[in-house]
Amino acid sequence: MCHVVNKIFFFLVIIGVPLSVAGSLLHWSQTLMFVVYCLTIVSLAAYMGRATESLAVISGPRIGGLLNATFGNAVELIISIFALKEGLIEIVLASLTGSVLGNLLLVAGLSFFVGGLKFKRQKFNVYDARHNSGLLMFGVIVAFVIPEVFSMNMSEAEAISLSTGISIILIVLYLAALFFKLVTHRGVYQHVSDKADEQTHEEPEWTSKKAILVLALSTAAVAYVSESLVHTFETVGDTFGWSELFIGVIIVAIVGNAAEHASAIIMAYKNKMDVAVEIAVGSTLQVAMFVAPILVLISLFFPVQMSLVFTLPELVTMVTAVLLTIVISNDGETNWFEGATLLAAYLIMGIGFYLL
Amino acid sequence: MCHVVNKIFFFLVIIGVPLSVAGSLLHWSQTLMFVVYCLTIVSLAAYMGRATESLAVISGPRIGGLLNATFGNAVELIISIFALKEGLIEIVLASLTGSVLGNLLLVAGLSFFVGGLKFKRQKFNVYDARHNSGLLMFGVIVAFVIPEVFSMNMSEAEAISLSTGISIILIVLYLAALFFKLVTHRGVYQHVSDKADEQTHEEPEWTSKKAILVLALSTAAVAYVSESLVHTFETVGDTFGWSELFIGVIIVAIVGNAAEHASAIIMAYKNKMDVAVEIAVGSTLQVAMFVAPILVLISLFFPVQMSLVFTLPELVTMVTAVLLTIVISNDGETNWFEGATLLAAYLIMGIGFYLL
Amino acid sequence: MCHVVNKIFFFLVIIGVPLSVAGSLLHWSQTLMFVVYCLTIVSLAAYMGRATESLAVISGPRIGGLLNATFGNAVELIISIFALKEGLIEIVLASLTGSVLGNLLLVAGLSFFVGGLKFKRQKFNVYDARHNSGLLMFGVIVAFVIPEVFSMNMSEAEAISLSTGISIILIVLYLAALFFKLVTHRGVYQHVSDKADEQTHEEPEWTSKKAILVLALSTAAVAYVSESLVHTFETVGDTFGWSELFIGVIIVAIVGNAAEHASAIIMAYKNKMDVAVEIAVGSTLQVAMFVAPILVLISLFFPVQMSLVFTLPELVTMVTAVLLTIVISNDGETNWFEGATLLAAYLIMGIGFYLL
Repeated sequence: MCHVVNKIFFFLVIIGVPLSVAGSLLHWSQTLMFVVYCLTIVSLAAYMGRATESLAVISGPRIGGLLNATFGNAVELIISIFALKEGLIEIVLASLTGSVLGNLLLVAGLSFFVGGLKFKRQKFNVYDARHNSGLLMFGVIVAFVIPEVFSMNMSEAEAISLSTGISIILIVLYLAALFFKLVTHRGVYQHVSDKADEQTHEEPEWTSKKAILVLALSTAAVAYVSESLVHTFETVGDTFGWSELFIGVIIVAIVGNAAEHASAIIMAYKNKMDVAVEIAVGSTLQVAMFVAPILVLISLFFPVQMSLVFTLPELVTMVTAVLLTIVISNDGETNWFEGATLLAAYLIMGIGFYLL
Repeated sequence: MCHVVNKIFFFLVIIGVPLSVAGSLLHWSQTLMFVVYCLTIVSLAAYMGRATESLAVISGPRIGGLLNATFGNAVELIISIFALKEGLIEIVLASLTGSVLGNLLLVAGLSFFVGGLKFKRQKFNVYDARHNSGLLMFGVIVAFVIPEVFSMNMSEAEAISLSTGISIILIVLYLAALFFKLVTHRGVYQHVSDKADEQTHEEPEWTSKKAILVLALSTAAVAYVSESLVHTFETVGDTFGWSELFIGVIIVAIVGNAAEHASAIIMAYKNKMDVAVEIAVGSTLQVAMFVAPILVLISLFFPVQMSLVFTLPELVTMVTAVLLTIVISNDGETNWFEGATLLAAYLIMGIGFYLL
Repeated sequence: MCHVVNKIFFFLVIIGVPLSVAGSLLHWSQTLMFVVYCLTIVSLAAYMGRATESLAVISGPRIGGLLNATFGNAVELIISIFALKEGLIEIVLASLTGSVLGNLLLVAGLSFFVGGLKFKRQKFNVYDARHNSGLLMFGVIVAFVIPEVFSMNMSEAEAISLSTGISIILIVLYLAALFFKLVTHRGVYQHVSDKADEQTHEEPEWTSKKAILVLALSTAAVAYVSESLVHTFETVGDTFGWSELFIGVIIVAIVGNAAEHASAIIMAYKNKMDVAVEIAVGSTLQVAMFVAPILVLISLFFPVQMSLVFTLPELVTMVTAVLLTIVISNDGETNWFEGATLLAAYLIMGIGFYLL
């Protein structure tokens, strides 16, 4: 079955990329192109997933997950910088919110659900789960709630100063977390069984070189198609009656995180929950503790500065999503129902943003 | 001692039920009848507790707890539908709040406290505790906070649409939780020692038939007396200086959940903490994920629709009660002090609603 | 090295205490005296730390931690009563907030960080961690959030009634917690390895008598110098451009909790994490559940009454600090990165209060 799916994705990429280039140059119907772009991105994401999986087999689950999160968010960072430059602060904050919600609830939810349909109980490293819980609590709840509340009694300039300070602290702590995981405490929190797993080497699908080449090419293609996709949003929003907030929080996030979706679900289906969780939660942490603060700092050089002050619905959905994820994932075990709970929360928030 | 208590309750039921019928037909003093109704309900609740216990012994702790929660909330659902029909949205929301607070803090608190006076450490299934924590976080925090915040910037009609969508999702996830617990993962999360417990069959007090008959009769009697009780609230409120909110949140909840109180405390005192927790938390989840959304959907056919938008004090007490319960119960162990903490939280909220 | 540090502190106390007395009597430059007072308090705190450590070795970790928290907060209680008497409600609430934040984030954060630089993984009793989590959730989140929300729709007199009721409940539950820990469940939640540790008696530095004498003298000296220090705050605030809120929440808390800082870090460096956590979290609980409610009750006899209604930034920082601490400490294990996370949260809040 997997073979057939791979063939379909190969076909879609071979057709989709040229069609995307042609469509955006020849100004074809934007609603039609919206569908073409989406399918192309999803197929490219499948290639990114396979390349990442090969690299993960070669370099171990942690580095593999890190690579994946990085490639997924590189696209998002680039698009956001273009939006910031044009002063579209609201859309940037909305798409950051969408990334957090999408990764925590949709990517993790689908992984847990799909993996849980095949396996009754799936386990992942409980120490990683607790480490991630602390960072989610810090990176989303402390770092995003404080500026929201304090900025109520602050001037615009003070709010920017506070956001700048918080952004620097977030980036420093994010780098410290990498240093902790990869240097001072590398392998300290691994179970004996994990180490045994690593010894029984699985064969990677592609060599390291081929995987990196595929990853680079498909990331570039995703970036190109994504940018074209962004320009269709206005027309599509008008056609389907979607608000800008809904497009930013839900549509951009789903398509923009297609790569993570594909990889995480494939990993969960292969019972590699450590990688699946690393993709979903690791990607969230990278958005909250690296992408968001980098955008705040970059915006200091642009005409309009961005502060870390979200709208109340954005903040409340992120806070409740983090609390739900912590309670569900803290025991290092998942099943289909925990996935369904995360998906149900995503659905509730999606309806909320649709109606807002 | 238990024998004497049973005799007292038998006496109270034999006297109380006819007195309740007579009093409501002959319009006796409402303050006097308030006391009669309350005592009658508590005694009937004791019979419901004994019947449920017999059924629990026969059918195992999970089904037993489920039966109990169902019979406890059937009464509440019926009363709420009558209130909805008359457009008393505020009272329905207040009594839903009261049920959540009463079950999580008062019923669980009394169970843990009374059980803890007899046993130093009481344990219950830690997997059930975590499963419940996830559902509490979803059913109360995600599903009730989102409409509160989003409805601030919504029209009345949009708030009703959002509440309707959330209600459908809540009911579907509640049914999925039953499917998970009773079908796909039945017995998966049981400790070996639990299974051993079940093999040493205890003798039920009553046969299955007698227990069901007693349960049915006492539930019907509780429903009848409860409705009479509701009509005394206005007079009692005026007499004692209680606000409608206080009566809805505190008094209705204490009397309306008397059955759960009695059963849960008896179970805790017999060190059957799995059943006690299933009654307290299971009942809360049924209120939040089944009774509340059913009422929202039913209200669509009534002149005044109900949205899931609570007052801020109602929402904040429910959210803090859930957070406290999760932190206290998540380790699958209780003692008298944890019970005292839950009771202290209930007392603080009770004073708050009294003064409001 | 420790020997040299002790000599420096001896020198600082011998010089600092007379200088402090002279400076406050002769009205020397307040900015200069601010530095003298701070250094003197820190050196005295080192003596308190050594005395407490001797007592901890003699009387076991729990009583040792309790003694420490008591001596640390006695100073704070006395200063706050003087402030209350003069109607400075805002400053008292700000310094209570500062104590909670300082103990949970700065003291615990520094302990975890410094201890973690020496030891890869440090463990403490996981049952104590869970017990503390429940109390933090109750004492800070339930007991402080409820009056904040309910008082919005209350008269001033009702808010005072609510605060009085909550204060009585807090004190009763705090005493019940002591009764639980020291009487009904003494030693129940200790690991076998803990008991083994206690049998290998370490030699205390000082005898019980000498330790108590040093503790009493240095506490008295700290109290005297602290009061002089308070009078320099206005001048120092003007000189450095610090707001009253920043001085109350951050400066008073850092200097006022210097004793806890010193002891907790020394304990963490010696891998006695049970004592370090008992100092940091125990001190927080004593502030929230004993010092704060005692101040509310005492204020009833003063011209201006104090309610438990904090400003929104104060409340939100305390709530997020408690949530972060619970998630980080709930597993009974620490490392340098968890310390760094707590310190980063403190820094964010410090910047917020500085800019406010």
